[in-house]
Amino acid sequence: MSRPHHDGSELYVSDPAPALGDTVTVFVRVPRGTGVSRVHMRWVRDGEPIFTSLKVDHRRGTDTWWRAEITAHNPITRYRFLLGTTSGVRWLTAYGVTNHDVPDSTDFRLVAQPPAPQWARDAVIYQIFPDRYARSPAADRRETPDWAIRARSWDEPVVPGPDAVRVLHGGDLDGVARRLDHVTALGADTIYLTPFFPARSNHRYDASGFDRVDPLLGGDRALERLAAAARDRGVRLIGDLTTNHTGDAHPWFTSRPDFYYPGVSWLGVPSLPKLNWASAELREEFRAVVRRWLSPPYGLSGWRIDVANMTARLGADDRNHEVAALLRAAVHEARADGLLIAEHGHDATGDLDRDGWHGTMNYAGFTRPVWSWLRAETALFDGLGNPEELPVREASALVATMSAFAAQMSWRSWEASWSLLGSHDTARIRTVVGDAERQHVAAGLLFTLPGTPMVFAGDELGLTGGGNESARAPMPWDTPDSWDTKTLGRYRDLIALRRGSPALTRGGLRWVHADGDVLMFLRESRSQSVLVLAARASADRLKLTGLPPGTTLENLYGGAPPLHIETDGSAVIDIAGPAVQVWVIP
Amino acid sequence: MSRPHHDGSELYVSDPAPALGDTVTVFVRVPRGTGVSRVHMRWVRDGEPIFTSLKVDHRRGTDTWWRAEITAHNPITRYRFLLGTTSGVRWLTAYGVTNHDVPDSTDFRLVAQPPAPQWARDAVIYQIFPDRYARSPAADRRETPDWAIRARSWDEPVVPGPDAVRVLHGGDLDGVARRLDHVTALGADTIYLTPFFPARSNHRYDASGFDRVDPLLGGDRALERLAAAARDRGVRLIGDLTTNHTGDAHPWFTSRPDFYYPGVSWLGVPSLPKLNWASAELREEFRAVVRRWLSPPYGLSGWRIDVANMTARLGADDRNHEVAALLRAAVHEARADGLLIAEHGHDATGDLDRDGWHGTMNYAGFTRPVWSWLRAETALFDGLGNPEELPVREASALVATMSAFAAQMSWRSWEASWSLLGSHDTARIRTVVGDAERQHVAAGLLFTLPGTPMVFAGDELGLTGGGNESARAPMPWDTPDSWDTKTLGRYRDLIALRRGSPALTRGGLRWVHADGDVLMFLRESRSQSVLVLAARASADRLKLTGLPPGTTLENLYGGAPPLHIETDGSAVIDIAGPAVQVWVIP
Repeated sequence: MSRPHHDGSELYVSDPAPALGDTVTVFVRVPRGTGVSRVHMRWVRDGEPIFTSLKVDHRRGTDTWWRAEITAHNPITRYRFLLGTTSGVRWLTAYGVTNHDVPDSTDFRLVAQPPAPQWARDAVIYQIFPDRYARSPAADRRETPDWAIRARSWDEPVVPGPDAVRVLHGGDLDGVARRLDHVTALGADTIYLTPFFPARSNHRYDASGFDRVDPLLGGDRALERLAAAARDRGVRLIGDLTTNHTGDAHPWFTSRPDFYYPGVSWLGVPSLPKLNWASAELREEFRAVVRRWLSPPYGLSGWRIDVANMTARLGADDRNHEVAALLRAAVHEARADGLLIAEHGHDATGDLDRDGWHGTMNYAGFTRPVWSWLRAETALFDGLGNPEELPVREASALVATMSAFAAQMSWRSWEASWSLLGSHDTARIRTVVGDAERQHVAAGLLFTLPGTPMVFAGDELGLTGGGNESARAPMPWDTPDSWDTKTLGRYRDLIALRRGSPALTRGGLRWVHADGDVLMFLRESRSQSVLVLAARASADRLKLTGLPPGTTLENLYGGAPPLHIETDGSAVIDIAGPAVQVWVIP
Repeated sequence: MSRPHHDGSELYVSDPAPALGDTVTVFVRVPRGTGVSRVHMRWVRDGEPIFTSLKVDHRRGTDTWWRAEITAHNPITRYRFLLGTTSGVRWLTAYGVTNHDVPDSTDFRLVAQPPAPQWARDAVIYQIFPDRYARSPAADRRETPDWAIRARSWDEPVVPGPDAVRVLHGGDLDGVARRLDHVTALGADTIYLTPFFPARSNHRYDASGFDRVDPLLGGDRALERLAAAARDRGVRLIGDLTTNHTGDAHPWFTSRPDFYYPGVSWLGVPSLPKLNWASAELREEFRAVVRRWLSPPYGLSGWRIDVANMTARLGADDRNHEVAALLRAAVHEARADGLLIAEHGHDATGDLDRDGWHGTMNYAGFTRPVWSWLRAETALFDGLGNPEELPVREASALVATMSAFAAQMSWRSWEASWSLLGSHDTARIRTVVGDAERQHVAAGLLFTLPGTPMVFAGDELGLTGGGNESARAPMPWDTPDSWDTKTLGRYRDLIALRRGSPALTRGGLRWVHADGDVLMFLRESRSQSVLVLAARASADRLKLTGLPPGTTLENLYGGAPPLHIETDGSAVIDIAGPAVQVWVIP
């Protein structure tokens, strides 16, 4: 699979965040044996394609690096390469090398907008659902509100059904603060809290106000305490804001009918009336909310926007981009390094790369292909909303899916998007894949592929759950014997590996092998390159090609022996799977 | 290649032009043997995917037709199908059947905007470059303007070079009117005239005014006469309007500096200053221009918009969609059945399916794949702007390219877009493919595939030319011995075939075979179905599958014997190529 390559990472683009009008140098890497003797760049300026011929910049090993200059002439400047080869011309786009013409949608993209903050690119996110994470002593003393059913004990099992969202386990923000050491020991550096605003459900996506923290969670002061404790440990907090709707208990719903579409609610649920962003005053209200919680003493580092995909979309109305831009501006006003992530369950690529969302929750381009490759034989449901059994797919299908989605966004939007194996909205990865060994492979992909890894709290302990409600079981603090400590150790090791590896946080991606049970890929940055193997089953005498010739790769993770590469760039290995292995390229 | 199928044609969609909120019935056709037992539709409503299960509507022959209802809830409502099969789930999108997840960009589209006019879908367009089409007696009496070099005779050969655009052959609109019988005998029913506004070049894309017809062409009265003569014959006229720039001789350039971007011109050519559509007054001027020439006594039926791809795009400014919508509204004000077509040389799909352009000139999705499949061995240039030799590609690459571009627009935008084998901006098809037999194959595709066929005047006589300037030779009226009458006959026959065939004008498209030298496809409407073969070379004992079992197909074009289909839907044929054959399905 040794092919001419370009992506948006630092090896190939001199400046991933140019200002409008800046000139950027881009490189194409052409391995020996690909028959390429000429490389041209086609870029689109003000709607018209323009061709430039690349020059050879340098040769290193068996690769020739070609160079061209491109101007960030438009907010999104699209480009692709035309390769003159001994067997005809080829296009190189973000989807790869093709021997026929393809539309512009997979062109590489240079985006002249401020990028996601640097910390976000290097982050490991830990998602906490406050009612189920941890209780403080004060939690037991709070009254049960009228809408709630109090769980008899913290460890009372969750039972899916119509009442599931009313069951209150009573986790609170001081509880989260008491467990920060667990988060830091895991290696995560950012906590994403699902909503902390008052509501009439345990998930709190039916906000009855955005002006205070739910007293059941300890109120504003508890958030202030959590923020301070987190800051002390270098841990950031991200909030969760619903912009598509509120709960019908929100005072706006009676006082400001102009803030809503009459009679319209989220998926027809009457208690979740849909907001109408035509209102300038609604916009001002949200601007204030966004800013308030990002400012001291709370100082959140950003927002995850709930139902971002539907926000401000209804029938002929589509103000989604305006709202995204407004929220981004408000984030920026409060803190220059703030982050704005859009929930999106299918294909968010059409909403990225503008002046709104920095990235998305990448269910479509990460979660689903990983699930389809690693799912257990016995897990037959489709936990991501499709009315058929979750498909069983080959490694090549995983690569095809990931590449197809990644090709429709800029590299930096991919990096800023959250990779996840599951969330409070899905089944648990452990249940999807069936056992600890396959979960290890899933986690291996989570922490080694491009995209910001997000861990749903409890995954690291091997918690199970076949649907979103059963996945929301409380953290088993009181039954440490139930913890899957092997999985916990693997998560810690993989997170440490990622956080210590410039190749894994900022490297490009070249697929080396994708066949049936085995995936292999290179992550390469300026200062480090690694080879990653993920196998769902064993494979004997696997022949690899396109590796650095005549080298020996020391193992960095997984415990495999060093890998000796022949002088033709090939290697033969035996794989005892399921396995994750990482070698470092000398 | 017998696969589950859906497209936007009348067999599969009950109403291709719903109003917002209308319910439409869609069908999926599932051939026997594909292992499909369940069909679901995923459609996206206000940004959120929703699944519906299809029901079996009826069975016919070996096909099962599944049915679902969909609401045109948004201006563009995207949908796709999920197939439950004996070998796993599959997606069916406009790109075809895939066994992995794909982004939404190839979803089918229901578009709740008024469609292109009915006449345009059934039209055959004939492109005339007025200076080179025909002279009236008055042409000889006109003075040569200061910018021009008068050709010594009508038949003086065109010579590419810097002076080529200054050479005046003196064709005029009364000349066109005198040759209308040629157009109607060919079978075309719509003439697309490149610009008739005054300018300082023979192509007139550097307009010095939009308020009158160039006196060199006979002035306003000549257009009035041409329009009347055309109307008498049932022939429509389409004009050509440049909205990206004017010539620097346009009075606006001195009187209205606010209409322009200071110092900016089309591709850096100083005589073509770029218009700035931020000006409300400029918009009003164009609205008046659009309306004036579509109204009596001229009554043009629509506009082709020059450089539509760049119009109103510069750096951070992108008002392209606003301009398209404004022009469309102006067209509609003048005549409800007006047409608006965007010139676009690469990928227009991002600009279609809204309330602007009805369609594009489909260079990317038609011209280029046809050229790449049929190009002559000796024609080495790339006449469509790429800096490499025009590639030689297989039939499968033609299908992949056409499918990739068509999949990113609605079916009706594809139908309304102009398919062309060349224009005043390219080499002549005859030179690209090298001989009359291959031109016949190209014309066969032009008149049998979806898309409105456009013929560049002279192609039907076998004119040659290796670049845009040499392709602009005057029509050889005076040397009829030079005409390729065989090609002329074939064009007439193919146009008659298309215009008489509901399958070819409004049928869906199912590919039957695409391998190396041979393409075969079905065009199927409610009242007629045909099988089309296009072969660039001979092929022996070609095995076809997926045809209507146990039938005999009579030949409708090309002279091949009837085709007998076995009871398993297969047939074996010998092909003497190059060839075009069309059979009718009983």
